[in-house]
Amino acid sequence: MILKTTKPFSNLWKLGFTREKETTPAEFIDARIPGAVQIDSARAHNYPNWFEKDNFRMFGWMEDVFWIYKTEFEHPNLIEGEELWFTSKGIDYEFEIRFNGKTLHYQEGMYTPVLINLTDGLQSANTLEVIVFPAPKLPNRDFGRWQADETCKPPSSYEWDWHPRLIPLGIWDETELIILPETNINRIDIEYHISSDLLVAEISASVCGQNLEGKEIRMALCDPDGEILIQETIILSENNYSVKWTIKQPRLWWPVGMGDQAMYWVKADVVDTAYDKELGDGQHISKRFGVRRSRLVMNQGAWDEPSGFPKSRSVPPITIEINNQRLFAKGTNWVQPEVFYGLLDHARYEELINLALEANFNILRMWGGGPVNKDVFFDLCDEKGIMVWQEFPLSCLAYDGDDKYLAVLKQEATSIINRLKHHASIVFWCGGNELFNNWSGMTDQSPALRLLNSLTYQLDPERPFIPTAPVMGMGHGHYVFRDQEIGEEVYEWMTRARNTAYSEFGVSGPADRETLESFIPKEELFPPKPDTSWETHHGFKSWQQDTWLMLPTLEHYFGKIDDLDDLIEKGQLLQGEGLKFIYEEARRQEPYCSMALNWCFNEPWPTAANNSILSWPAKPKPAFYQVKQACRTALTSARPVKLKWTAGEIFSAGLFFLSHFTEKDLVKISHTKLTIDVFIDYCTDTIHLLTWENVPVLAGKNVTGPEVKYLLPAWNCGRFRLLLKVKDHPEFNSEYKFLFAKISDYGELKNRNRLNM
Amino acid sequence: MILKTTKPFSNLWKLGFTREKETTPAEFIDARIPGAVQIDSARAHNYPNWFEKDNFRMFGWMEDVFWIYKTEFEHPNLIEGEELWFTSKGIDYEFEIRFNGKTLHYQEGMYTPVLINLTDGLQSANTLEVIVFPAPKLPNRDFGRWQADETCKPPSSYEWDWHPRLIPLGIWDETELIILPETNINRIDIEYHISSDLLVAEISASVCGQNLEGKEIRMALCDPDGEILIQETIILSENNYSVKWTIKQPRLWWPVGMGDQAMYWVKADVVDTAYDKELGDGQHISKRFGVRRSRLVMNQGAWDEPSGFPKSRSVPPITIEINNQRLFAKGTNWVQPEVFYGLLDHARYEELINLALEANFNILRMWGGGPVNKDVFFDLCDEKGIMVWQEFPLSCLAYDGDDKYLAVLKQEATSIINRLKHHASIVFWCGGNELFNNWSGMTDQSPALRLLNSLTYQLDPERPFIPTAPVMGMGHGHYVFRDQEIGEEVYEWMTRARNTAYSEFGVSGPADRETLESFIPKEELFPPKPDTSWETHHGFKSWQQDTWLMLPTLEHYFGKIDDLDDLIEKGQLLQGEGLKFIYEEARRQEPYCSMALNWCFNEPWPTAANNSILSWPAKPKPAFYQVKQACRTALTSARPVKLKWTAGEIFSAGLFFLSHFTEKDLVKISHTKLTIDVFIDYCTDTIHLLTWENVPVLAGKNVTGPEVKYLLPAWNCGRFRLLLKVKDHPEFNSEYKFLFAKISDYGELKNRNRLNM
Repeated sequence: MILKTTKPFSNLWKLGFTREKETTPAEFIDARIPGAVQIDSARAHNYPNWFEKDNFRMFGWMEDVFWIYKTEFEHPNLIEGEELWFTSKGIDYEFEIRFNGKTLHYQEGMYTPVLINLTDGLQSANTLEVIVFPAPKLPNRDFGRWQADETCKPPSSYEWDWHPRLIPLGIWDETELIILPETNINRIDIEYHISSDLLVAEISASVCGQNLEGKEIRMALCDPDGEILIQETIILSENNYSVKWTIKQPRLWWPVGMGDQAMYWVKADVVDTAYDKELGDGQHISKRFGVRRSRLVMNQGAWDEPSGFPKSRSVPPITIEINNQRLFAKGTNWVQPEVFYGLLDHARYEELINLALEANFNILRMWGGGPVNKDVFFDLCDEKGIMVWQEFPLSCLAYDGDDKYLAVLKQEATSIINRLKHHASIVFWCGGNELFNNWSGMTDQSPALRLLNSLTYQLDPERPFIPTAPVMGMGHGHYVFRDQEIGEEVYEWMTRARNTAYSEFGVSGPADRETLESFIPKEELFPPKPDTSWETHHGFKSWQQDTWLMLPTLEHYFGKIDDLDDLIEKGQLLQGEGLKFIYEEARRQEPYCSMALNWCFNEPWPTAANNSILSWPAKPKPAFYQVKQACRTALTSARPVKLKWTAGEIFSAGLFFLSHFTEKDLVKISHTKLTIDVFIDYCTDTIHLLTWENVPVLAGKNVTGPEVKYLLPAWNCGRFRLLLKVKDHPEFNSEYKFLFAKISDYGELKNRNRLNM
Repeated sequence: MILKTTKPFSNLWKLGFTREKETTPAEFIDARIPGAVQIDSARAHNYPNWFEKDNFRMFGWMEDVFWIYKTEFEHPNLIEGEELWFTSKGIDYEFEIRFNGKTLHYQEGMYTPVLINLTDGLQSANTLEVIVFPAPKLPNRDFGRWQADETCKPPSSYEWDWHPRLIPLGIWDETELIILPETNINRIDIEYHISSDLLVAEISASVCGQNLEGKEIRMALCDPDGEILIQETIILSENNYSVKWTIKQPRLWWPVGMGDQAMYWVKADVVDTAYDKELGDGQHISKRFGVRRSRLVMNQGAWDEPSGFPKSRSVPPITIEINNQRLFAKGTNWVQPEVFYGLLDHARYEELINLALEANFNILRMWGGGPVNKDVFFDLCDEKGIMVWQEFPLSCLAYDGDDKYLAVLKQEATSIINRLKHHASIVFWCGGNELFNNWSGMTDQSPALRLLNSLTYQLDPERPFIPTAPVMGMGHGHYVFRDQEIGEEVYEWMTRARNTAYSEFGVSGPADRETLESFIPKEELFPPKPDTSWETHHGFKSWQQDTWLMLPTLEHYFGKIDDLDDLIEKGQLLQGEGLKFIYEEARRQEPYCSMALNWCFNEPWPTAANNSILSWPAKPKPAFYQVKQACRTALTSARPVKLKWTAGEIFSAGLFFLSHFTEKDLVKISHTKLTIDVFIDYCTDTIHLLTWENVPVLAGKNVTGPEVKYLLPAWNCGRFRLLLKVKDHPEFNSEYKFLFAKISDYGELKNRNRLNM
């Protein structure tokens, strides 16, 4: 957003640390920005690979020292009308900017950009320093996320059940020294209102900058093809200016699968400066935005509740409606893809967003325990039609809200809202994660959440805001395939559940052998044990006992595990079947239910076992493909009642045809009545159970079919599959895996059948 | 709040109406202000009594004309430094102010005060006019409350189940022409923050006014005894000034029953004006305020919920905590005590508030469907320690929030918050009534409610805000003794209910004979029929069918009703027993439940039957005394399972001792272990059933006792009573009435037993 000259300017940074803020570091090493002090230190001092074994513990001391970034440069010999600025999109977390020994700026908060004019303080030799304070820790708190309370740091960095204790610090987003014309436009803000019939968009574009009084500026609105729709030239009387433009029948931005991601541009430049003459049209500043109407509307059927007296309220709405079309949100929870989130860039974001598209997702929840992403992430989501649920940086803590915290939160939230609100992809704001549950302890009266509701309403009134997830009606969890304590399986509680949205649910699975071998020493690989790299990488004692490897659950179903490959295969089977069931069950519960997001998509470092469906950095686990199948636009679906069967039982599963087709899609389907054949596949044989005929394919509406029943004979194999095959439309086929135990073996956990089908 | 001279000034108003705004009325009549145009018209034209029969229909045309208030006066011959102002605290609803033919002000909204300096426009003969527009009605809406949508008018005026269709218009709050010194202080605002340990209060007092630059003003803080604690004199550099004072160990304001209602004063005056010299110390302006910490905290036990997965949120907190002490809110729902709420004054408010105190209430809910009360109401609540739950003027409508409505709501809500926020009695704000239910259709995303949350947070951040009632966990209803549709009694659903607060519940009862005779013609009195004054006064077809007289319910229990007195006695019996049960049951559910407020306390005109426990204007029904008993600080209590019994059944009722005693109270109780004797009283005999010994009296904690069981013999009487008598403490005694049917009669509704006990 900064109007730059094409003049190169030295931007080499060094990094040192001190125990006392005013002490000079003993040593300066090379720094790469954006990044993190830990990365630079480890590189300079040849630390072993940080993600292997428990090497991350070696970084612990780095939380508690002052880090000094330093760049030294000669006077840049500015010409008339030029100025030297220091600009940063983000410095993590509490810091001072010192120029030639003089402190120019202090800030707490990593989301508020810094713009400092250095021109007046220039000397022949110059030193610019960024002094990064130790990581904030609330005093008298236990080690862990509780130390991150009353700060806007991502609490997951303080240790989470999938994140080691590693608290990044330093310059984490685009930061540079630049030579700017003294007359410049440095910001465009865009707001718009679209009429409820979508026919008229009123655009309000404002520019602000430096020394613009009396200058002629040119502002233009370009359509998605790059054609100038409207252009005007104005002589400004102050340093900012707003225009209002009306677009009739605007080209709309749509989420993926519903239409194009049309986007408009606002461009602005200063017409008659020396720079303009010298540098030509290239010197404009521009901002892209999509036009769409985004609302949270009442879930279908929810207004009929509650019934009876005493009567409480109806649930809050959580069905996303874009451009007056309700949709089912299929997606996942995003966590920072790197422990050192300063390393994130376009390429890292893009590979993950592409995987989200591959999984048939249309939404990503930006979970509040992690950092707010960089601009390029949101640009990519805009371009690819991935909707974003954006949270503020609060998660699983009480954030009681003393005056200092509220002031920082206000500053940071204001920066986040103003930076991101032009992105069409962001469909609603959320205060943070699980704040209204007892492990956090916030309530509707918490000043931090009232502040966020107020700020979003004031700065971005047309975008919905929810205070946290879950709110009333929404469900989080469970995070296991089988609750060992109550002896229930995912099939049971999900079929019983009646939630408007499943915004978190998980089933853990181990990583593949290659990933495991990348951080677990050979001698620790099998059998997995606590107090080894399995534990530091979340295989044991991460959340409840036995998470996330969940050996007791594996043993419940499979008995003794033979070797590492056996462990991986069985763990991944449970993860895939469990997640598939939940996504499909959420879809079966449409339209009352309107959302399914698994916990979680990705992970910030390689875990031994985790609920993620991608291993770090971006490697799909088998469950990824099961989820992808469950999130297809249309599919046949079965609702099994349990995983493990035995001879003599009557196998049963309800049949469904799930459809997210639009009316437009239907035209493209060759058959609007389908024929679905149901088979059981076991050992080496396949039995045809029934043919479900004349299954209508409807737009956005599921069809309930018959209930399969089958008396299970005595097989000599440990598994079988239910196959649903759609005549002429194999793209809608589905399959479900089950375990099988001979009566004599069942219950004694001795059944050692291996995969033989 | 206006610094007045002692100079009298003529303030006689006339009133006329026209169909077209710019037409001169054909006639002017005497107007009384504050009041309502309907009252003046009826008086001038000898309308029959508006509350008898269906006379209110005669006022219908008055909704749709322009009303012109006019006062004519000669030049007031102001002396140097004097100015003439028009000030009004409230004009209902849309209006213009015209002075000597020139429009000086337009406003929509009855809660925003008007201050207009008339001095510059003065002539030798002057005419000041207030042109009140027709009542706002949203076009294309059915007759009724739906017409009040998108306005800040009280929707109940448009017809409610206890309010006739009568929409007041006109000057409804204090309004006058006054001569002011040109240098004056016209407003004091007070904010304070009290430390969580209650030991330090930081007071911020600001004054603003006219022509204060360069003037010396004096500001003082006086303690509850009137002693000056702090005083300072300042020469102002602008028209407003703020001071910050600290009070150590402030004397706290407490709700009734918990302590004193200590209040401080801030006083301000201009020291060296001509006026000051002339008029002396009398010319100060002052504002009174109580210091207390008011919060909504989590209901006890509520953090343990929800259990299991998928997990939703815990309920929002609704336990009121004052000065760090949780309390159980016992109270009622207040509706406007007059259809023409402009008539309300100190005397009318005080008689009702005194009745609330007599009923052992500590809180009044200012229901959002009625008008926000005048200042004197809140002054009285501050003085008497009655807590106030204050709603904004939204009720049972969608208030979709177009830009015009949101602008008016913002203006009106800002005025309401700024006018009332210094009142210690107001314990929380609420967006309005039942907005999150399907008969309203608003949600957490409604801009009107996000605006109110934002405004209250910005202007009055330490006072809690709830968006509506009920929110999650709170219950409204039922409003009947017996649900005829499902055949359930109040005993059943209330015992099954588990709500954090019962903020509305009702059982209707008829008015007494005197009240009924005051508006029902003799020939319509008995039997009550639809299409008579019984119906216009809510006896029939008010909410569901048969409300509020509920003859089918009476017939279910009592068979044919003999005469008017019989009807009144039986209807009032159900109301009293029903309400007593609900209040006591809510208390039995402490501490998870923390509030019980019946619907409703009072009524704005005489109803034939209603859920109110006071008949208009302020006459207790028998249920009032039952409620009073149920709200005693401490009482023995029984939990019956049904109303009507028959021979051979086993009567059962659980026993409890309910206590809202504080630790301090306990010292005053002579016995800390009680002996409670339980009797059944029937026909002419009394049977002793059991003695519950050694019942501990605890501070704020109930005790559960034995369950009474008694095989009912064949009695020849239609009623019996359960009596709970506390040895040496008759003030804790309780009794419960039941109906009794011989087996042969039961179920055939032929039992015509009359009261014989």
